[in-house]
Amino acid sequence: MNRIIAGPNQVEEAIQAGIPIHVLYIQSGLAQKTAARLFSLAARRDVKTQSVDKEMLNSLTGELNHQGVVAICGEFPYRDLDTLLDTLTADLKKRTLLVLDQIQDPGNLGAILRSAYSLGAAGVIVTKNRSAQVTAAAVRASAGASERIPVVQVVNLVSAMDRLKKAGFYVLGTSLQGSTAMDQIKWPDKTAIVLGNEGKGIRKLTAENCDELFRIPMSSGFESLNVSAAAAIILYSIQQAQSPPIHRRHDASFV
Amino acid sequence: MNRIIAGPNQVEEAIQAGIPIHVLYIQSGLAQKTAARLFSLAARRDVKTQSVDKEMLNSLTGELNHQGVVAICGEFPYRDLDTLLDTLTADLKKRTLLVLDQIQDPGNLGAILRSAYSLGAAGVIVTKNRSAQVTAAAVRASAGASERIPVVQVVNLVSAMDRLKKAGFYVLGTSLQGSTAMDQIKWPDKTAIVLGNEGKGIRKLTAENCDELFRIPMSSGFESLNVSAAAAIILYSIQQAQSPPIHRRHDASFV
Repeated sequence: MNRIIAGPNQVEEAIQAGIPIHVLYIQSGLAQKTAARLFSLAARRDVKTQSVDKEMLNSLTGELNHQGVVAICGEFPYRDLDTLLDTLTADLKKRTLLVLDQIQDPGNLGAILRSAYSLGAAGVIVTKNRSAQVTAAAVRASAGASERIPVVQVVNLVSAMDRLKKAGFYVLGTSLQGSTAMDQIKWPDKTAIVLGNEGKGIRKLTAENCDELFRIPMSSGFESLNVSAAAAIILYSIQQAQSPPIHRRHDASFV
Repeated sequence: MNRIIAGPNQVEEAIQAGIPIHVLYIQSGLAQKTAARLFSLAARRDVKTQSVDKEMLNSLTGELNHQGVVAICGEFPYRDLDTLLDTLTADLKKRTLLVLDQIQDPGNLGAILRSAYSLGAAGVIVTKNRSAQVTAAAVRASAGASERIPVVQVVNLVSAMDRLKKAGFYVLGTSLQGSTAMDQIKWPDKTAIVLGNEGKGIRKLTAENCDELFRIPMSSGFESLNVSAAAAIILYSIQQAQSPPIHRRHDASFV
């Protein structure tokens, strides 16, 4: 299935990231500055463009807020777990992966991809069934990050977790019942964080296969962080613990 | 304008929190367990209930996913800034407030309220104009937190910031151009964090009136955290810095 990337910033991110785009639709009458930038970028990158009316973009995108710019791309390029792990071992020593156990809201998936990429995670593993996939809504919520961070889709999450452990990852699951408070954890160099479904948390079998379960300490007693807020907090904590200050400057190059 | 709270969990939160509810609509044929729990809770709290069909709930809620349960409440009870500040000074020494400068997405507002309440913030200040208000969509995204954390609505944000400073708050604005990296900040006992609009960040005049601007250090060079992810990270960092471990247990009482 082709996928749709909607919104000028999202599409620009995708072009910059070298995502193959079948055609870029630009609404007639779009603000000239935006249109000019996109046409010029598309020309430089050999992306085919077409001016269309708003109604056509509406019909393509449904509820998505396209702001006059829509790109039609090929299928989302899910990565293979083994390939991802091979890349990582040849790469830096300290690595963080996220494992999403049946996250169902595409907005949450997108927000998690965005934080994951921004905060230096090396990849995100999602379950194939009963899970949000990298659809147009997720791409949009990710603000372009979905095109930049490897996403792996797996059918059997427990097997994938075993594979991670064999590759040297310590698998930590988030759970309200987790006995370890997050601020007590000394993050291993290779950490995989398992986040669960919005309503139910991580599944029993998933929890049993984690090396350790932990919770985010909360001062309020109202234990109700959204899963993407939890992901942001965890990833930031790992980043801070693992990166020497010199690597944390905002003008640091991509790592 | 009356407001609508949709979804069984959200409505249950609202009843538990003592929010005045004009009428609670429960869809005919709702799962018996859920319906029984809600009818019983409503009876105990003197909330008027009515069984209605799904179409009526759809027409009330528009795009909101109501899951068969909708409560009609009075107007959202925005608090007065002076009243909030008076409450706080009589209260604990360490306090954090959030100031939202034209956050426009109700989902982001709701997510921020949820994290703010979970992570112990004392209140949230929003601008009246060009901002998401506490609508049904925001209530839903907040998972009940909107009914539990004080929300203040102000017309003039700079005046409100002056008022905060007079009350002893140190006003810190988030900005990609902030010269201070967040991990270098020693959070004052009374901290107000200003978060800006999703696209534009905080306004120039708002930035000029902050005591200090800071940025969240990011290892990737892709500086693109969602504002609610940023809020979660900041609030968690403040909570961790300010709370002695004994207050951070997940079974701590409400503070």
